[in-house]
Amino acid sequence: MDIKDYMQTLGSNAKHAGRVLSRTESGQKNRALLAIADAIDHSRSVLASENQKDLVAGLANGLPAAALDRLALTPKAIDAMIEGLKQVAALPDPVGEITDLSYRPSGIQVGQMRVPLGVIGIIYESRPNVTVDAAALCLKSGNACILRGGSESLHSNQAIAACISQGLQAAELPDTAVQIVATADRAAVGELITMNAYVDIIVPRGGKSLIERISQEATIPVIKHLDGICHVYIDDQADIAKAVAIADNAKTHRYGVCNAMETLLVAESIAHRVLPLLADIFLAKGVELRGCLKTCSLIPECSRATEQDWHTEYLAPILSIRIVDGIDQAMEHISHYSSQHTEAIVTENYTLARRFLREVDSSSVMVNASTRFADGFEYGLGAEIGISTDKLHARGPVGLKGLTSLKFIVLGDGHIRQ
Amino acid sequence: MDIKDYMQTLGSNAKHAGRVLSRTESGQKNRALLAIADAIDHSRSVLASENQKDLVAGLANGLPAAALDRLALTPKAIDAMIEGLKQVAALPDPVGEITDLSYRPSGIQVGQMRVPLGVIGIIYESRPNVTVDAAALCLKSGNACILRGGSESLHSNQAIAACISQGLQAAELPDTAVQIVATADRAAVGELITMNAYVDIIVPRGGKSLIERISQEATIPVIKHLDGICHVYIDDQADIAKAVAIADNAKTHRYGVCNAMETLLVAESIAHRVLPLLADIFLAKGVELRGCLKTCSLIPECSRATEQDWHTEYLAPILSIRIVDGIDQAMEHISHYSSQHTEAIVTENYTLARRFLREVDSSSVMVNASTRFADGFEYGLGAEIGISTDKLHARGPVGLKGLTSLKFIVLGDGHIRQ
Repeated sequence: MDIKDYMQTLGSNAKHAGRVLSRTESGQKNRALLAIADAIDHSRSVLASENQKDLVAGLANGLPAAALDRLALTPKAIDAMIEGLKQVAALPDPVGEITDLSYRPSGIQVGQMRVPLGVIGIIYESRPNVTVDAAALCLKSGNACILRGGSESLHSNQAIAACISQGLQAAELPDTAVQIVATADRAAVGELITMNAYVDIIVPRGGKSLIERISQEATIPVIKHLDGICHVYIDDQADIAKAVAIADNAKTHRYGVCNAMETLLVAESIAHRVLPLLADIFLAKGVELRGCLKTCSLIPECSRATEQDWHTEYLAPILSIRIVDGIDQAMEHISHYSSQHTEAIVTENYTLARRFLREVDSSSVMVNASTRFADGFEYGLGAEIGISTDKLHARGPVGLKGLTSLKFIVLGDGHIRQ
Repeated sequence: MDIKDYMQTLGSNAKHAGRVLSRTESGQKNRALLAIADAIDHSRSVLASENQKDLVAGLANGLPAAALDRLALTPKAIDAMIEGLKQVAALPDPVGEITDLSYRPSGIQVGQMRVPLGVIGIIYESRPNVTVDAAALCLKSGNACILRGGSESLHSNQAIAACISQGLQAAELPDTAVQIVATADRAAVGELITMNAYVDIIVPRGGKSLIERISQEATIPVIKHLDGICHVYIDDQADIAKAVAIADNAKTHRYGVCNAMETLLVAESIAHRVLPLLADIFLAKGVELRGCLKTCSLIPECSRATEQDWHTEYLAPILSIRIVDGIDQAMEHISHYSSQHTEAIVTENYTLARRFLREVDSSSVMVNASTRFADGFEYGLGAEIGISTDKLHARGPVGLKGLTSLKFIVLGDGHIRQ
């Protein structure tokens, strides 16, 4: 198989299907989503046996346990895929919405219409459930998509692709609306991210190194999700009980997620009251603490943090802690070390809360809430294709709207420009 | 001067100034804009003499008349710069606006706050008025900017820069909020478009080749404006008088602009009624006509259009004309040849108007209005930094909002994720 030809064909198919999808009514898209859910429900045994092939090969190739876990299509994972499809079908359709339509002095009416982006290329690891999630979001937002999952999940993805194709056909939509790259050849990725004639946007999902490499090589715009080095700042006017609950939740609710707190900043005058309480909790949960000199003097079990610690997204039960003068030093620290994902302040002071909200330049900024809320479902987006750490187009959790754009529409009655 | 060091210093200054600007109140930004207008008004003689140096050098270097015209800071051009500053001061400030703030089932309130992008790099030709326009839009939207005008305008730009600096200082803002690259060395551009640590977005303004080169070499996201191959489709249910007025205006109101019509599509059954009327107008105005075979049989003065013609943005008194079966063939032609800038349909038919609005994938789509309306002022944006032919972030005329982004804000009362 010539990879370039193969990918160009997928691209051309997708562009054509995208034009059809862009004018498909919501009802028909929802019927397709529900038909895909049905097809998956009726294909449980095929999905299991194809997934088994991937799991056996993965085990033979020495995939780590966590990777095998993400690869496995358990009955529960299949239930979740079906439920996800139903949820996306139930979401409002953003496409075609017209906003701000108003008359101009010239007599024309000008507004903006929400439109699909066209063709979306998604590159992800060997997690078959992402195949269904990504397809559902693209379909609902009127975009065709080309999906390239990790090569270890190829059999599983092709079995899922068959279900998707069946559902699309049942709803009389072109089955090229969702295409799976059916080769493990890595050259396919290089081709996908440079097919500017066919693909409008690339969404990489996976580790930081994958995303950095794709961003560097892509000639198509990329919506990326890099680090989540999230901070919680406990101000000297914080309510101690809220501060303890939020810092505990932000760190220990889940360790391996991008919206977990990695660095805790504490105002000096409240540190001796709040840090011992938190240290007890963290140490009891097995969280390793690394702090500044002042922190270490308050918490004997704390080791000294290095410069590298402040830059690190641990994704693990490790926390760095720094005692600061007050909000200005806290915001300076955040400005310097944060990855601009999510930061929170804990304070009862109105003026400081207002300043933090305005001045901290991150995709999510919070007052008296856990960073763990930074999530498309929690924000009411219904679903998310990822969390963008870019500033352009879509910032923070990206739902259906992030997969659309706005075009201007002008309504006249023979109007000409004077 | 080491160009890399010099540009890195500008970048670092800009990043710092951007943080200050992001939290500056609207009143202070407006005071700066008006103080810049005053400074320009009081510096007319200096501006004229510095501009004279550029004009003399330009003449000696054989700059074409059109380029010298754009370079000249006439009293009228200076009046326009002052008026532009006052208009931007009068526009509403988009920064800090909070939308969609609502309670979620978890009890947190989630909304979005409009925030500046940070630092904007603008690369443009030798047009000193762009220096003021661009600085005004960036300042009002809370962004620091680094401006790199054409080397032929260096003296003029530095004189303008002195006025801007004076105005910023009068309003107690850092004069590094607007920085002009004070070297004609082209290496400065290469550095500007790859300083990812300091610059958030690049806006190139100029010819297509400049923009293509910058887009290819930039590692920072670019808001670009490529071709304007705009179409008007006259449907067989068009009102003839409206069709003639719109096609005339779209082509002949101004020839060298991106929103001028370059190709006219006419439904076959109405062509014999509308094309002779239009041919009389176009030929009287000296517009060269290039058409399909059918068009040529209706208009003897018309020459045959080549495949290349349909792909060409003439920016000149030349028009290509094609007779099509109806709306489907018109939209197929547009889909194939358009640069997705602006397209218009002329029709009295409700269903076809609705289809055209929905199905044509261009940054502006119009019904019964001249393509010449595709413009930030006409759309009510107050001013524009350019017209984006990209789909992501900002599509069509880009005003103050296009220079901002949205961050999520979360308000809680000690909320943690369950």
